[in-house]
Amino acid sequence: MTRPYVRLDKNDVTVLLVDHQAGLLSVARDFDADAFKNNVLALADIARFFELPTILTTSFEDGPNGPMVPELKEMFPTAPYIARPGQINAWDNEEFVAAIEKTGRKQLLIAGVVTEVCVAFPALSAIEAGYDVFVVTDASGTFNPVTREAAWDRMSQAGAQLMTWFGVGCELHRDWRNDIEGFGGLLASHLPAYANLMQSYSQQTQG
Amino acid sequence: MTRPYVRLDKNDVTVLLVDHQAGLLSVARDFDADAFKNNVLALADIARFFELPTILTTSFEDGPNGPMVPELKEMFPTAPYIARPGQINAWDNEEFVAAIEKTGRKQLLIAGVVTEVCVAFPALSAIEAGYDVFVVTDASGTFNPVTREAAWDRMSQAGAQLMTWFGVGCELHRDWRNDIEGFGGLLASHLPAYANLMQSYSQQTQG
Amino acid sequence: MTRPYVRLDKNDVTVLLVDHQAGLLSVARDFDADAFKNNVLALADIARFFELPTILTTSFEDGPNGPMVPELKEMFPTAPYIARPGQINAWDNEEFVAAIEKTGRKQLLIAGVVTEVCVAFPALSAIEAGYDVFVVTDASGTFNPVTREAAWDRMSQAGAQLMTWFGVGCELHRDWRNDIEGFGGLLASHLPAYANLMQSYSQQTQG
Amino acid sequence: MTRPYVRLDKNDVTVLLVDHQAGLLSVARDFDADAFKNNVLALADIARFFELPTILTTSFEDGPNGPMVPELKEMFPTAPYIARPGQINAWDNEEFVAAIEKTGRKQLLIAGVVTEVCVAFPALSAIEAGYDVFVVTDASGTFNPVTREAAWDRMSQAGAQLMTWFGVGCELHRDWRNDIEGFGGLLASHLPAYANLMQSYSQQTQG
Amino acid sequence: MTRPYVRLDKNDVTVLLVDHQAGLLSVARDFDADAFKNNVLALADIARFFELPTILTTSFEDGPNGPMVPELKEMFPTAPYIARPGQINAWDNEEFVAAIEKTGRKQLLIAGVVTEVCVAFPALSAIEAGYDVFVVTDASGTFNPVTREAAWDRMSQAGAQLMTWFGVGCELHRDWRNDIEGFGGLLASHLPAYANLMQSYSQQTQG
Amino acid sequence: MTRPYVRLDKNDVTVLLVDHQAGLLSVARDFDADAFKNNVLALADIARFFELPTILTTSFEDGPNGPMVPELKEMFPTAPYIARPGQINAWDNEEFVAAIEKTGRKQLLIAGVVTEVCVAFPALSAIEAGYDVFVVTDASGTFNPVTREAAWDRMSQAGAQLMTWFGVGCELHRDWRNDIEGFGGLLASHLPAYANLMQSYSQQTQG
Amino acid sequence: MTRPYVRLDKNDVTVLLVDHQAGLLSVARDFDADAFKNNVLALADIARFFELPTILTTSFEDGPNGPMVPELKEMFPTAPYIARPGQINAWDNEEFVAAIEKTGRKQLLIAGVVTEVCVAFPALSAIEAGYDVFVVTDASGTFNPVTREAAWDRMSQAGAQLMTWFGVGCELHRDWRNDIEGFGGLLASHLPAYANLMQSYSQQTQG
Amino acid sequence: MTRPYVRLDKNDVTVLLVDHQAGLLSVARDFDADAFKNNVLALADIARFFELPTILTTSFEDGPNGPMVPELKEMFPTAPYIARPGQINAWDNEEFVAAIEKTGRKQLLIAGVVTEVCVAFPALSAIEAGYDVFVVTDASGTFNPVTREAAWDRMSQAGAQLMTWFGVGCELHRDWRNDIEGFGGLLASHLPAYANLMQSYSQQTQG
Repeated sequence: MTRPYVRLDKNDVTVLLVDHQAGLLSVARDFDADAFKNNVLALADIARFFELPTILTTSFEDGPNGPMVPELKEMFPTAPYIARPGQINAWDNEEFVAAIEKTGRKQLLIAGVVTEVCVAFPALSAIEAGYDVFVVTDASGTFNPVTREAAWDRMSQAGAQLMTWFGVGCELHRDWRNDIEGFGGLLASHLPAYANLMQSYSQQTQG
Repeated sequence: MTRPYVRLDKNDVTVLLVDHQAGLLSVARDFDADAFKNNVLALADIARFFELPTILTTSFEDGPNGPMVPELKEMFPTAPYIARPGQINAWDNEEFVAAIEKTGRKQLLIAGVVTEVCVAFPALSAIEAGYDVFVVTDASGTFNPVTREAAWDRMSQAGAQLMTWFGVGCELHRDWRNDIEGFGGLLASHLPAYANLMQSYSQQTQG
Repeated sequence: MTRPYVRLDKNDVTVLLVDHQAGLLSVARDFDADAFKNNVLALADIARFFELPTILTTSFEDGPNGPMVPELKEMFPTAPYIARPGQINAWDNEEFVAAIEKTGRKQLLIAGVVTEVCVAFPALSAIEAGYDVFVVTDASGTFNPVTREAAWDRMSQAGAQLMTWFGVGCELHRDWRNDIEGFGGLLASHLPAYANLMQSYSQQTQG
Repeated sequence: MTRPYVRLDKNDVTVLLVDHQAGLLSVARDFDADAFKNNVLALADIARFFELPTILTTSFEDGPNGPMVPELKEMFPTAPYIARPGQINAWDNEEFVAAIEKTGRKQLLIAGVVTEVCVAFPALSAIEAGYDVFVVTDASGTFNPVTREAAWDRMSQAGAQLMTWFGVGCELHRDWRNDIEGFGGLLASHLPAYANLMQSYSQQTQG
Repeated sequence: MTRPYVRLDKNDVTVLLVDHQAGLLSVARDFDADAFKNNVLALADIARFFELPTILTTSFEDGPNGPMVPELKEMFPTAPYIARPGQINAWDNEEFVAAIEKTGRKQLLIAGVVTEVCVAFPALSAIEAGYDVFVVTDASGTFNPVTREAAWDRMSQAGAQLMTWFGVGCELHRDWRNDIEGFGGLLASHLPAYANLMQSYSQQTQG
Repeated sequence: MTRPYVRLDKNDVTVLLVDHQAGLLSVARDFDADAFKNNVLALADIARFFELPTILTTSFEDGPNGPMVPELKEMFPTAPYIARPGQINAWDNEEFVAAIEKTGRKQLLIAGVVTEVCVAFPALSAIEAGYDVFVVTDASGTFNPVTREAAWDRMSQAGAQLMTWFGVGCELHRDWRNDIEGFGGLLASHLPAYANLMQSYSQQTQG
Repeated sequence: MTRPYVRLDKNDVTVLLVDHQAGLLSVARDFDADAFKNNVLALADIARFFELPTILTTSFEDGPNGPMVPELKEMFPTAPYIARPGQINAWDNEEFVAAIEKTGRKQLLIAGVVTEVCVAFPALSAIEAGYDVFVVTDASGTFNPVTREAAWDRMSQAGAQLMTWFGVGCELHRDWRNDIEGFGGLLASHLPAYANLMQSYSQQTQG
Repeated sequence: MTRPYVRLDKNDVTVLLVDHQAGLLSVARDFDADAFKNNVLALADIARFFELPTILTTSFEDGPNGPMVPELKEMFPTAPYIARPGQINAWDNEEFVAAIEKTGRKQLLIAGVVTEVCVAFPALSAIEAGYDVFVVTDASGTFNPVTREAAWDRMSQAGAQLMTWFGVGCELHRDWRNDIEGFGGLLASHLPAYANLMQSYSQQTQG
């Protein structure tokens, strides 16, 4: 009745950022806009910090969906970037799957907009293809909380693990001693409450 | 520990609209009335867009439950329409099951009012009968969110997949290139936020 | 990956009302007090309408927990009534289990206060003992919604089915033709929104 | 900067029940249906307990709005009952105003459906006509909480006092010694949480 | 301590629709997108039904704010349409104020996006200029409910009356006998719950 | 259009604790039970810290309402304690008013259960009698948030100032230098979040 | 019954930032931490953009309250910075009031932590001193929403105007033509939803 | 399709308290701070009442995370206390696992801050290591409810049982007759609503 712990391994993870486009973001309303932007950028920072292979994809970026969020494009200048010509499920795009296969990794971190489509469809496909799938729930947005709950249930029942960017970062880092300054800085820049702790600490011990 | 991806296939899906009746709708209060009406009509538009076999059924429509919502009746003039003489679980009505069997399809999209009865009972029966069952959660309504959560849990644990009309439309469409104008129009007419994107895009590129 | 439909059968169901005591009800705050009282009495009416064997039990009713809600006592004057001398899990009380076994039935409807203890403990014990367990979620109350969610998860994962009194009544009734007046009256007395439909219908067709 | 205390006086109060009709109640969704029914009947019981002049009025009761809730009609068999032929603001109906004036009283308790129209319009008219107006907020319902908040603000700023049925009962009763049994019974029948206290008390002191 | 009832008069009202633009609507998230669209169009239908002078204005419609919602433009083809060259407070635009003055009316109904700016600024200016100002709260949207509450408070304390489109329609109509079919049709097309009542009524009395 | 700042003055304040009785607390559900208990005790600690005259009163403490919360009784062993024989509005009890007058103070801090009755009635009476009234909103509880909002509005419009225990403590203390240890300790014992700050500070500066 | 429009004037406004300290921020939980940080920095950017005199003050920054948020300190290197030795109400600090008086301005924008103390106390004092007070509600935080509502009510009833940073910026800017790039950039950096509009616009018109 | 009932056994349980540190608690905002503190101390009291082996661990307590909550340290003076030098997942610390193994027990109760990391990681590791894992959900806190839901789902799907401190206490106690006074006192000190029942009972039966 229990599952073995499939644990994120920085040497076996690929990150998939699906359809974080300026237009589509206007329909993602299950998170506060400020918090959601922060979550997406935090995940991107994690991908860079751990030097994880990262794959970007968009849907119809010349139309109303709008361009990929520019910060993401700038952060991954050399990453595979697949502007899908029409496939809604990114997994239906051969170039996208090939980019994943090329990494030779078996763990996939997926985030995107909207959750029940751009995230859930490739997540379900990837599970069937044998990958270990981790959904970064707070870097994925959709119309409202009810839709999110249905999407989470479908993915969870199929075998995806539901995580958040903070959990992802911590599970990858494993031990603070690997890099205290670097990882602490990453957290501070995306967690105001933690940054406050660091500032108080800094003043009180150095002041 | 994982499930294969049972994916909606427009050639293998039948839509069941159960008890969307004018009276019963007055007790469905887990969704805002405007949004719920929109969700039900969006599902109906999807059924027509993909030419899915659709079956309508009602319970006691000459009594307090009231008539089937007129828009639905008008949209499916030739669909099987089973006014059940008393069975609460539509699956207990032989005519209803026969209509489903006649389609020869194995995937069922179910929506109705109220969720824990008119949707859950036939969903559970259909699963047992070997069908792949997809619940269109946002086109199904009930008394309050707590009741909805209990009903979702019962269906999900039995093997139903929880979806929403938007996810259903996208999973059926698969590729925008199949019909950009048609599917885009469908989305725009039911997603004000997406329609806004299209209008801005249209003005900015054509203006 | 799917479950067979274990369906409530009025000839195979026993109802367990656990610790609906005047004092304990003051700690059940995940439902509005008016609605919760209505839910509990609706379940009791269903038990009587379908003549289901019903077993009442209390915990320390001479102390702060207070007496069983008087309406319940009056509705089931001849039902087994087990005032437990100390066992928290009613299933640890031999008299309680014996009363259940005596019914010879295999389906148990359980409701009580508080959900994560008085309901969950006997539910988990009954599942292990081979019974089919149905939790009447809205006739069971606890401190707050977060506690309820944890309790639901534990029971659902163990194999209990989560229902509400309305779903229970409909699944037992199966067909309106079995008794339109009786079942309609039951619903009307516990569902104000449905009673309104009946009144409008009545005036408009008879007026 | 302060206001004198305009206090409800059972010898100077008239109760106005406006458009509590079976159909209209289906649109009042800012309160749970069980709680709202209880609130309206509690106000009616208060009106009878204190023998307050009570005036009923309806809008188009032969049409979709449906009949006055039958319990109210039965509780006030001899009360003025004004089926308005068309006026939306009951104060525009001369018969309604005449019935109020005939009571010779200067304090008005108003409740109705929907709050921003059937309650607010006569409340604002009555204030202008010099009456002291008290809105029974929880026996008045409307589409959703946002609408309710706007309606409350409009009435409050115009000088209406916002109350609830419990506060109304207590302010009218003033002293428990006037009738402990009667008023206690009224509260117990509409406040399950208070009834529980009474039952525990009763058992513990008499048992 | 009370205010006289300043009541909407269809012969003295002008409607101001401020900045309902496709882009700006993507930031209005205190209402569900479906409900908000419905509210705005309902107000527009009311303006047309009562033949109220209506004035449209936009801010930078050639830029990211996007074009006026096309439905509004189509509904008021001959209305004054002021594309403001830069003024944030529409009242700072002389053409806008001149259009209002030209109507010779003293009551202003204002709705727009976003509430605390595009609605509140001209509302406060209009109050100071001596107009009676009514804010159509549910046809006005902003970032989140907290912002809305602050904006409502500022306007209410300054003397604006907070209303909703339904209240506006009813206060203008005054008496159903002025036009039962027309006004009923207007309500039915924007209030699904009311439309359901009409359908049930229609079937039950004509069927 | 503005009010002068009526500021709490520890030499001019009397505290009124109205009907915080064990039974009545079971109906106060607009605050979490843990938080509410903390709020009431925090207010009591403030009364003692600033040596404010404090008056306790109860309603029918020998009946279902139950005894005054024992902590309060113990904290104010010599305070006037008025067990009202029947008056619902404590201000109708001459002994209660006499105890207030005897203090010779003009500012009243009122808290109690339930807000719309036990707090609002004496608050409105006190305002009329010329006192400056401050409601300690978070040490006052009632059935639900909607009731609370109506009660707040009635009191605020009449001229009461709405505060919370934390604001009360700070406004009375005025300057930390009056007693850093004492006031800090009071805050720490009732504000876990602040206590955490103090612990971190203590360790980091002394460790 | 109406108020004249006291409108923010960039030549007559001073900004007061009160106690935005790293420790205190850990108790401000009525806003999401990400959103709150953004709101405070947005207000600071506005102060700089319009070159408004800005005054910073802290309470016990060497103790558990922690240091002023470093971003604020860096943004206003030459601003008056008053580390209060003990006064809770900043207005009780002569240096603070002198700094305000020195600006010769009569409009005060106040934000701080916590709302009911650090904001409300100086706001009420400033109103009494004859200033026009504007509370920047979303750059002010406190323990929970109930506390916030009480604090808002107290300040609003005393004559403060409740605003948000976005409204403040727009009311100060008055006309986009004063600086389109500058003000647009400010909005984009603090409103992700607006930034998305700008990106889509940019691509669609320049692409 | 059902699970056997793995029931807490006081002779087979070890309690793990992970990272309840003063600094970290400032980021745990999915529970009210008062309630959360109470929940954590209630769990600690349970551990002591049943004399359960208890293991404390912290992460970087000399840095911003701050010291272990002092109450916990004081309550378990002789418990193993592992200040982890860097491992985020406590299970990666050999000393921690050794302390658990040394107890020779197979049931683990885990609580900590933050839920998705400090609780979930060791919970998943312990499940894989063959332990029966019970998460004390309400003594575990994190950033917000959405994060909590994702973390619960991950742990529940892996086989952890979700409980609360009250359920834990009751499942361990099994029978009130084991110690009525002791266990009753424990509940009363952490459940104000239950303490009220006891006080009313005490007065009414002894008074």
